[in-house]
Amino acid sequence: MDRRSFLKTSALGGSAAAATTLAAPAYAQGKRTLTMVTTWGRGLAGVHDAAQRCADTITAMTDGDLTIDLKAAGELVGAFEVFDAVTAGQADMYHGADYYFTGQHPGYQFFTAVPFGMTSLEQANWYYQDGGKELHDELGQIFGLKSFLGGDTGAQAGGWFNKEITSPEDFQGLKFRMPGMGGQALGKLGASVQNLPGSEVYQALASGAIDGTEWIGPWADEKAGFQEITKFYYTAGFHEPAATLSLATNRDVFDSLSPGHQAIIETAASEAHIWNLTQFLANNGAALQRLQASGVKVLEFPDSVWDAFGQAASDTLDEYMDDELFAKIRNSAEESMKSSAGWIDKSINAFASQRDRVLG
Amino acid sequence: MDRRSFLKTSALGGSAAAATTLAAPAYAQGKRTLTMVTTWGRGLAGVHDAAQRCADTITAMTDGDLTIDLKAAGELVGAFEVFDAVTAGQADMYHGADYYFTGQHPGYQFFTAVPFGMTSLEQANWYYQDGGKELHDELGQIFGLKSFLGGDTGAQAGGWFNKEITSPEDFQGLKFRMPGMGGQALGKLGASVQNLPGSEVYQALASGAIDGTEWIGPWADEKAGFQEITKFYYTAGFHEPAATLSLATNRDVFDSLSPGHQAIIETAASEAHIWNLTQFLANNGAALQRLQASGVKVLEFPDSVWDAFGQAASDTLDEYMDDELFAKIRNSAEESMKSSAGWIDKSINAFASQRDRVLG
Repeated sequence: MDRRSFLKTSALGGSAAAATTLAAPAYAQGKRTLTMVTTWGRGLAGVHDAAQRCADTITAMTDGDLTIDLKAAGELVGAFEVFDAVTAGQADMYHGADYYFTGQHPGYQFFTAVPFGMTSLEQANWYYQDGGKELHDELGQIFGLKSFLGGDTGAQAGGWFNKEITSPEDFQGLKFRMPGMGGQALGKLGASVQNLPGSEVYQALASGAIDGTEWIGPWADEKAGFQEITKFYYTAGFHEPAATLSLATNRDVFDSLSPGHQAIIETAASEAHIWNLTQFLANNGAALQRLQASGVKVLEFPDSVWDAFGQAASDTLDEYMDDELFAKIRNSAEESMKSSAGWIDKSINAFASQRDRVLG
Repeated sequence: MDRRSFLKTSALGGSAAAATTLAAPAYAQGKRTLTMVTTWGRGLAGVHDAAQRCADTITAMTDGDLTIDLKAAGELVGAFEVFDAVTAGQADMYHGADYYFTGQHPGYQFFTAVPFGMTSLEQANWYYQDGGKELHDELGQIFGLKSFLGGDTGAQAGGWFNKEITSPEDFQGLKFRMPGMGGQALGKLGASVQNLPGSEVYQALASGAIDGTEWIGPWADEKAGFQEITKFYYTAGFHEPAATLSLATNRDVFDSLSPGHQAIIETAASEAHIWNLTQFLANNGAALQRLQASGVKVLEFPDSVWDAFGQAASDTLDEYMDDELFAKIRNSAEESMKSSAGWIDKSINAFASQRDRVLG
């Protein structure tokens, strides 16, 4: 089905536009249902919740005039097919992690996470104040999307290992599960990087098919049960210092909405962004306490490993710099990070480390 | 004017409810203007912007069906009169810092900042996930308000001094401007604490009437021009590790709105919260770089001073513990902070300090 005929037949679905004595633009009339596809299995902790939050808030704010019909991964299209489904007009919007779509454009990596990149506050700062949103929109224009950030898992944990990591050489030949550009970077340290879907990771770790894995953070990792297999847990990781999620609407569909409904979609995404970030923070904090109580060793990589991570991350990003838009996005992100990180370090972080020292 | 007659005459202002062929609840008809008063002078960087952002987003999301008429401090009532104006129904909503209203209830301190309290992420986590929002609502029920967080200045700077601070004894007799419970705590260290309105601080510092002052952070401090008078600037402070702002609606007015418009007000406040926090981050980062380039010495208090701050902050909060609701709020906040701080420290902060070390 081409996009035009799709829009004609479905865009003004729901009840017919009602006659009214008020003169009002055509788009203000009647109820409308938009189909949202997602990259998440139904009920997947945190990430599916962010999609559902967007849908519910949009429906609530419009008193049901705009209803979102959420189709989880596999219910209409597969997880990684949502981008193409929305650009083609097969669905109206998707919720997902945009770094799944680096095949469409490598610049999308920055709208979820890049290795050695920004923390949640830095990423939000770049997005809302320092040009990130406009670059997201520039990417979206290529593909006929109107995209907004609409979720954040926060910093992802370094992951689970079958031994302590004392030097970069420990990664030589290590069979480790890590997707995306983080995984590419880890490969430069000699790791044998695997990209298993979530459903297969526990079994692979239990059988020794892999030596270790990163997943999300204490909350999701505990649910996955990795603490039953190994006790070496690195909380800080280099690969996804924050992982923001996107709500992207087909641009023709978006343009056909009233300005009020457009503002509602954008604002619902921002609300889901802060709500979802705190959801992960709250659940990770409590889960980490449980994991520690159950005997998990919570560790930090030594400086030499961080040095190697930093070099590998930089080398990985360098490989994409021939793409002009990728380079533009990277430069924008790194300049913003430099500026915000200086203040965050000297204010929030300096305070928090003193407070935590004093309170014990 | 009593609240009832006020509501009758003004709540359904604007154009008269229009006849329509659709059956719809009474509250869905016609345009309505709500009056917002604020604790901010018109145009005051960052804080007035957060109020304006709430107003604009509400208006945009309703396609103007709900228009917010923003009256800055002094335009309808004075800055510190907004709370009583809204509880009395003289205005429909206020935007402000709730710790201005500890006279009404000391528990309000927690919805802006307490000394040695939570950072922005921790505060958002407590509010949206760990019971803070419900406690804000419990306070609001006493006063006939429906309150939401709708802004955050981020961590406020330790402030400007006419000398380096090397021990807690340096505060003995120091004439320092700091409002609220932070100021009370500083008084316990022997400081002569002043609470000057913003407009008088520069002159007081220049004339030597005060020896030092805290204000907000590099962005606002630079605008105030304190770097022209003194060069000793402490970026991390103990008194307001984050300072969240509130959007509070008269509860009768709120209850008279459609569920959609209620959701719109709440969601607009959340959007302003993350937007405003990043606005301060972006501007503080850039301003700090300028201040450093202009010769300002950026310093950190030594451990002994932080130890004294911590004890004084705790002693100050203890003085209010006879109030049952204050104690309930404090216990909730501190429990949440303990849980989230552990994960933030081991993930975001551990990553950021390694990244900043590696990148230099």
